[in-house]
Amino acid sequence: MNIAVAQSGGPTCVINASLLGVFREALADERIEHIYGSLNGIEGILNDRLIDLGAVLSDEYHCALLRQTPGAALGSCRRKMPKPSDDPRLYAQIAERFALYNIGAFFYIGGNDSMDTTAKLSAYFASIDSPVRVIGIPKTIDNDLMHTDHTPGFGSAARYLTVTMQEIVQDCNAYNLPSVTIVEIMGRNAGWLTASCCLLRDTGEAAPHLIYLPEGTLTLHGFLNDVRGRLKDHNTVVVAVSEGCQFVDADHADALSGAVDSFGHKYLSGIGKFLEEQVRTKIGCKVRSIELNLMQRCSSHLASATDLDEAEAVGRAGVRAALNGDTGRMMTFHRVSDEPYRVEIRSVDAALTANGERTFPKEWIAPAQNQITDAALPYFRPLVAGAPEILHKNGMPLIIHLR
Amino acid sequence: MNIAVAQSGGPTCVINASLLGVFREALADERIEHIYGSLNGIEGILNDRLIDLGAVLSDEYHCALLRQTPGAALGSCRRKMPKPSDDPRLYAQIAERFALYNIGAFFYIGGNDSMDTTAKLSAYFASIDSPVRVIGIPKTIDNDLMHTDHTPGFGSAARYLTVTMQEIVQDCNAYNLPSVTIVEIMGRNAGWLTASCCLLRDTGEAAPHLIYLPEGTLTLHGFLNDVRGRLKDHNTVVVAVSEGCQFVDADHADALSGAVDSFGHKYLSGIGKFLEEQVRTKIGCKVRSIELNLMQRCSSHLASATDLDEAEAVGRAGVRAALNGDTGRMMTFHRVSDEPYRVEIRSVDAALTANGERTFPKEWIAPAQNQITDAALPYFRPLVAGAPEILHKNGMPLIIHLR
Repeated sequence: MNIAVAQSGGPTCVINASLLGVFREALADERIEHIYGSLNGIEGILNDRLIDLGAVLSDEYHCALLRQTPGAALGSCRRKMPKPSDDPRLYAQIAERFALYNIGAFFYIGGNDSMDTTAKLSAYFASIDSPVRVIGIPKTIDNDLMHTDHTPGFGSAARYLTVTMQEIVQDCNAYNLPSVTIVEIMGRNAGWLTASCCLLRDTGEAAPHLIYLPEGTLTLHGFLNDVRGRLKDHNTVVVAVSEGCQFVDADHADALSGAVDSFGHKYLSGIGKFLEEQVRTKIGCKVRSIELNLMQRCSSHLASATDLDEAEAVGRAGVRAALNGDTGRMMTFHRVSDEPYRVEIRSVDAALTANGERTFPKEWIAPAQNQITDAALPYFRPLVAGAPEILHKNGMPLIIHLR
Repeated sequence: MNIAVAQSGGPTCVINASLLGVFREALADERIEHIYGSLNGIEGILNDRLIDLGAVLSDEYHCALLRQTPGAALGSCRRKMPKPSDDPRLYAQIAERFALYNIGAFFYIGGNDSMDTTAKLSAYFASIDSPVRVIGIPKTIDNDLMHTDHTPGFGSAARYLTVTMQEIVQDCNAYNLPSVTIVEIMGRNAGWLTASCCLLRDTGEAAPHLIYLPEGTLTLHGFLNDVRGRLKDHNTVVVAVSEGCQFVDADHADALSGAVDSFGHKYLSGIGKFLEEQVRTKIGCKVRSIELNLMQRCSSHLASATDLDEAEAVGRAGVRAALNGDTGRMMTFHRVSDEPYRVEIRSVDAALTANGERTFPKEWIAPAQNQITDAALPYFRPLVAGAPEILHKNGMPLIIHLR
């Protein structure tokens, strides 16, 4: 039989490592002949855009390039699938394609929506008594998928964040003037990524002096008092804030991207710019905001070696699960111990992860709602560990184009 | 005799490598006893904040840490010195400090303002028949100092930029929808850094599809036409724009950071956000802007090995120049050949570099004002070359604190 694999949702630094894991495990199994990559997620199946991965990943060198290539090498999509009962023709079309290409198993690397697709597809194939297996491979920098200790992609984003934050802190420390630097970090509802900045503590660094998560109870009044307080002890105050933070006493809904005020003026800023402006007008010291933007999810040169290894391992495990007859499952990590760090790969019903969101534990947020407690450190530490070897040419990391 | 060294202006990834060069060359010369670091530039001299670098840089390991530490390890300042005739007491105070510490030579690592200070101090010491030597060590990511082929700090910022741009391009390519991504890059008057993105061409990449420099003649009308044109050929259009670009037919003065409109509303955006909004309203496709902010000058983990080596070499050469009796000079690079790349270190009267600005050559800007010609590639290539080895602990680059 043949298999197909696809990528969906926002890229991470290790979404291609999971693709590689699926490829390598399938390549090693004699029951599998062709390994197809579906371009732009499930849309590649529908639009007949499949590539034979064996032809492009012809040797270990090309596999190594795929592992360090940023973005989603097969292309991604953002498509929420309807229920099979709402659009049976769509599902019949997918089943036809699978039959045409003799695809016996499909692997979907993605986040919540992809797990929803995984669950719906596997339910559909079961309903038509098809033997096709569908397995979800988790992926998101947000670390917000249910029923797994963490998600592939998170550790690399957290490593990017801590390394970059250390560099920003050193830069800000150059001057002898009181200053505030606000760093806006991805995470609309879940603050895992922002919280991971607390790892700077392991290097003896007091920054970020303030950390605000969407899970906290935040007030603008409290924020300004926090900043004033930290400025008494530190010349340079660095603040980490999740993009999704809401300050309950602030009328900052208008400040968010794209909103228009009553005069028709565009407000182009996110929460970082909003807080910057608050510090400028209410405190009056030197202030700057930094939005880490796409770099958080695409800086493959700063991937965590642990994350890369795990992303590949979970792709491999997905293939083994499908060959064992599993379907409709998302692969998961179960943490056995923090130190020495050990995880087991298991799986869970994909439907159980499709619509939930795992937020940061409130017990790891300091009572003042502006810091992360030391109890979170053993959770984060192993996930960012290890600097991978990168293949370069003239100082540029080498990449591969599959499309 | 003893010597003193200080850092000034915005940090770069290699400002500490130049400090290390001064230290190592001085350490190896038996005529020099103590090597003092002046904290926060010239202010450390005035405020009696000197540290004995020999005590903190006690072995090769600590030297290696300094070389890879971001920011200005001695701290920086932004102080424009008055003319000696306008404030003779200030200069007399500096001379007293130098006498007190038996400082026979002073090395100032910085940009234009530091070269101005270098020129003024050396003129002052000459006017009082003092044998104290003052040497400027160039430093700026902007690459805009006169009379040198390039400046230490530029190559690393350019390497950060090209590596990051490649990652952003891969991320943007994941989706199958027409999109525009605008990357705002440092450079108020000089577009060297933005222009260096053309190096992606060496990897076979068409992006950035449009590059706009302050040196170009730009119109908003032309920009929108350029974007529309590129969208015909490319699904994902990536634009690199210098923060200092002015579009002559755009009333975007109000859009720049911190400006207030007639209703008292703050406009918080730079040129990237402004162009983003123009694309959104006039073209209507998916659009995003990214400001690379401080990361351009502090991402030491992406320093160029060539830049690091040269920054150290130019610090060493400064010490040799002072010991040979030179004063009031800025050390420079003279390029002997592009390939194989070879530079000679020379020097120039610091006063000649203090108030000028070297902008990007107009002949390397394409006639349409929206790209860089291939003729610029041999200039840029060697400057970004080489990935340095970085000492890590648990995935975090190690750094040193001198203060």
